[in-house]
Amino acid sequence: MDVFLAVTSRREVRDYADRAIPEDAVLRILDAGRISGSSKNRQPWRFFVVEDPQLRERIAKSVYAPGNVHGAALVVAITVSGKGPTTFDAGRAAQNMMLTAWNDGIGACPNGISDAEALQQALELAEDERTATVLTFGYAARPRDPERRSPEEWITRADRKPVDEVVRRL
Amino acid sequence: MDVFLAVTSRREVRDYADRAIPEDAVLRILDAGRISGSSKNRQPWRFFVVEDPQLRERIAKSVYAPGNVHGAALVVAITVSGKGPTTFDAGRAAQNMMLTAWNDGIGACPNGISDAEALQQALELAEDERTATVLTFGYAARPRDPERRSPEEWITRADRKPVDEVVRRL
Repeated sequence: MDVFLAVTSRREVRDYADRAIPEDAVLRILDAGRISGSSKNRQPWRFFVVEDPQLRERIAKSVYAPGNVHGAALVVAITVSGKGPTTFDAGRAAQNMMLTAWNDGIGACPNGISDAEALQQALELAEDERTATVLTFGYAARPRDPERRSPEEWITRADRKPVDEVVRRL
Repeated sequence: MDVFLAVTSRREVRDYADRAIPEDAVLRILDAGRISGSSKNRQPWRFFVVEDPQLRERIAKSVYAPGNVHGAALVVAITVSGKGPTTFDAGRAAQNMMLTAWNDGIGACPNGISDAEALQQALELAEDERTATVLTFGYAARPRDPERRSPEEWITRADRKPVDEVVRRL
């Protein structure tokens, strides 16, 4: 899929079909995170693929929307540690992963964390390591075809602030 | 360009050719930021396109690598304010913008901030607003063709930690 069409057509997908993600797509998603640029190339992240059902339940309880984790075909927690703009870098990696998923027709959503300490224990993180986000992935329960609109149409239809509110030219 | 090829082939570009970016490409880059997903759709950002030479000089002095700003065809400061994971969201927007640029053959680089206060004053930010990054864009002085390798080859050649160091399956 063309990059600009992917960027403009992707929306957060929270309701997933009961359908597994092929392993090659999982590997592309993880590689998209691993290859991301980061400040001083520190690669401050780890990517935890959570498959064990009991552990998944603990992860579900530590985010604001447990249902996203319950329904997802793939759950990846991104953790960061060390100095520098690690949260910013985690955002870059997450976007790379979600766009790469979308390129394969797979939806995704970043999940806000409600209980950071529980997550810390569940993933057995180091003391200076913390979870930046929990990404949930899956085919959409109600799929939509990005190709059915142009990038410009996707932008127009999105619920976003107008250009003159967010862009300033100085 | 295919999303996965864009994700895997893009590298930070810091040395720019003396060549302007067409206005339609500038608008795509800004829209790619504006359309980005964010926590609770708060869209916590503003995008400052810095064109005035004197203001540019002040921006250059407030980042670690002033030369990137001096050489860039387009300079965009992303600021954030308010509650929530705003820095993470800024990372998502920045990645959308840099991938969209790369889709048009345009390089980019996020610039670390050395003097946040100077930047605050130069951009006349609100008290609770701060700059997440300064993105510099331009055609590469030494261009390279993403199509000349496969995504897998781009990954293999990147200076990144191996999979077993950053990915854990639980």
